[in-house]
Amino acid sequence: MNNTQEMVISLALEAWKLNINRADKLFDTFSDEQWQTDVALGRNRGIYLLGHLAAVHDRMLPLLNLGERLYPHLDDVYLLNPDRAVTGILTADELKLSWKNVNETLALGLDALPETEWLGRHNSISEEEFIKEPHRNKLSVLINRTHHMAYHLGQLALLKK
Amino acid sequence: MNNTQEMVISLALEAWKLNINRADKLFDTFSDEQWQTDVALGRNRGIYLLGHLAAVHDRMLPLLNLGERLYPHLDDVYLLNPDRAVTGILTADELKLSWKNVNETLALGLDALPETEWLGRHNSISEEEFIKEPHRNKLSVLINRTHHMAYHLGQLALLKK
Repeated sequence: MNNTQEMVISLALEAWKLNINRADKLFDTFSDEQWQTDVALGRNRGIYLLGHLAAVHDRMLPLLNLGERLYPHLDDVYLLNPDRAVTGILTADELKLSWKNVNETLALGLDALPETEWLGRHNSISEEEFIKEPHRNKLSVLINRTHHMAYHLGQLALLKK
Repeated sequence: MNNTQEMVISLALEAWKLNINRADKLFDTFSDEQWQTDVALGRNRGIYLLGHLAAVHDRMLPLLNLGERLYPHLDDVYLLNPDRAVTGILTADELKLSWKNVNETLALGLDALPETEWLGRHNSISEEEFIKEPHRNKLSVLINRTHHMAYHLGQLALLKK
């Protein structure tokens, strides 16, 4: 590893953290009523997207080999089914807490990830496949999930008053 | 430059292109009426966000030292003022053409950018400042603008029928 490479990885990591911070600031402004509102007429509610983001980030823990999932029970309501298909029992405050815990746990793992690991395979690809497709590495997961977060943040920002 | 660094830069570039492709596919499905619709009640219209994205990408040409701007006249309507403050005279088809031309011109420049240039300064930072803040490089512009695009794509996707 050299300094330039270090720089490139830290750029991707900083971009991730920047978007997490933006999300946290935005989420702290929403009332329960705002969380229950559709981001646009007939589309997902804020609370669904919050649970969805928490679930997707939670899945990054095993995917990046950073540990077990904290909230696997989120998937059924917020990931595998569309909004309102399954009734969620968690409040926005509870989901926000899950979101924060997941991101804090991820941050510890990501900050401690040795630079040499970033270009290693993630856990959804076999060693055999990875030889043929070396771009399917841990860094690509981080980049892709940052875009996923930015995409839904754009939608959640529509709930602002 | 080594292989790992090459990989990291190509990951960022692929992520940029993936989002451009997603945008193009989405934009091709919209009717004139959809472009004139607010992404959410009382928010930006689709056509404003299209012009906004074209303007922001157009500004990347001089910023990354890839050439002169193609459509500087977009800024007044789609960047410096909020939606509906200044009446745009361009149709959605004209804006879509600008969007495509800008991205094609950018792609030529980005693909030809020598790897050593990616970590060089962009044109909004002086050489002096860049010594203190070496992360403000061309790659960081590409990463940031990919998130910007994903953010607004999330909003534009709400116009889907």
